[in-house]
Amino acid sequence: MVLGIDPGSVSTGYGIVERKGNALVRICHGDISPGAGLPLSSRLLFITKGLREIMEEFRPEAVSLESVFYAKNARSAITLGQARGALLVTVAEFGIPVYEYSPSSVKQAVTGNGRAAKEEVQKMVGLLLKAGLIAGKKDATDALALAICHLNSHSAGLRVKGEAALLHTGRTI
Amino acid sequence: MVLGIDPGSVSTGYGIVERKGNALVRICHGDISPGAGLPLSSRLLFITKGLREIMEEFRPEAVSLESVFYAKNARSAITLGQARGALLVTVAEFGIPVYEYSPSSVKQAVTGNGRAAKEEVQKMVGLLLKAGLIAGKKDATDALALAICHLNSHSAGLRVKGEAALLHTGRTI
Repeated sequence: MVLGIDPGSVSTGYGIVERKGNALVRICHGDISPGAGLPLSSRLLFITKGLREIMEEFRPEAVSLESVFYAKNARSAITLGQARGALLVTVAEFGIPVYEYSPSSVKQAVTGNGRAAKEEVQKMVGLLLKAGLIAGKKDATDALALAICHLNSHSAGLRVKGEAALLHTGRTI
Repeated sequence: MVLGIDPGSVSTGYGIVERKGNALVRICHGDISPGAGLPLSSRLLFITKGLREIMEEFRPEAVSLESVFYAKNARSAITLGQARGALLVTVAEFGIPVYEYSPSSVKQAVTGNGRAAKEEVQKMVGLLLKAGLIAGKKDATDALALAICHLNSHSAGLRVKGEAALLHTGRTI
């Protein structure tokens, strides 16, 4: 069971996917969206509480995140970094290993094309999970795509060299 | 009692200052430095565990942080954001309000000059806290400067308008 997370301080998408034989099965997905009017720390706390509940309920074996090397500007990079930091420390508390994949690896793993359009990724996530289009849940679909990417890269032995970076070994200190 | 924090994923400085009558008294200061070789999540966990211990022991009434609007590049902005996010969520768990101040407000509050050099700030922190120069602890000195800034801005009614942003009200959700 792999938990994909698409972090954001306004909306954090999550999705858990499990491999059962040859099939990929969606266990759950959704968005954790604290009120945008709340102070930053309260939003981060809201998100980590939500993630904690999900991890307690499903006990995923790995977390899959998108790697980030680009941002519009320093402000948006810091904002995204803050959401990532809050969730990384929460995942680390559970001792769950965290892997990160580049956006093109995720597209490659889901559609077979590293340059696929967003809509194509969304559509393929729905097809792969036999869940139809997961309407209106862009962050959650991205999170499911990350979970699929990790499952496909790992279990099929197709792990993209140099692309999957282990952020956290799962050993707590 | 105010806790200043200078976040970083390799070294996070902290310092607690208390106002006693007209004097500012240093309660504690230091660096929390996880091994640089540890994975990111483990470093963030190490730092938040350290901060948690400090907050449990001293129960500060406020946390003072430096505001960030600038970074060398997206990567360093994300790295700094991650350290900030991890500590913000930890502080929020304690229900302690978080204030942030611009670098120039901190310099102004400590030296009377918003464009003071780093060395000048360090020297004044030592003089104000009657602690001499706090040798080799740059992050910790910056954290003490942040605590002083909050105490001076607040208790002297000199709060710099538009500069001190309340990041977290202290109410947990």
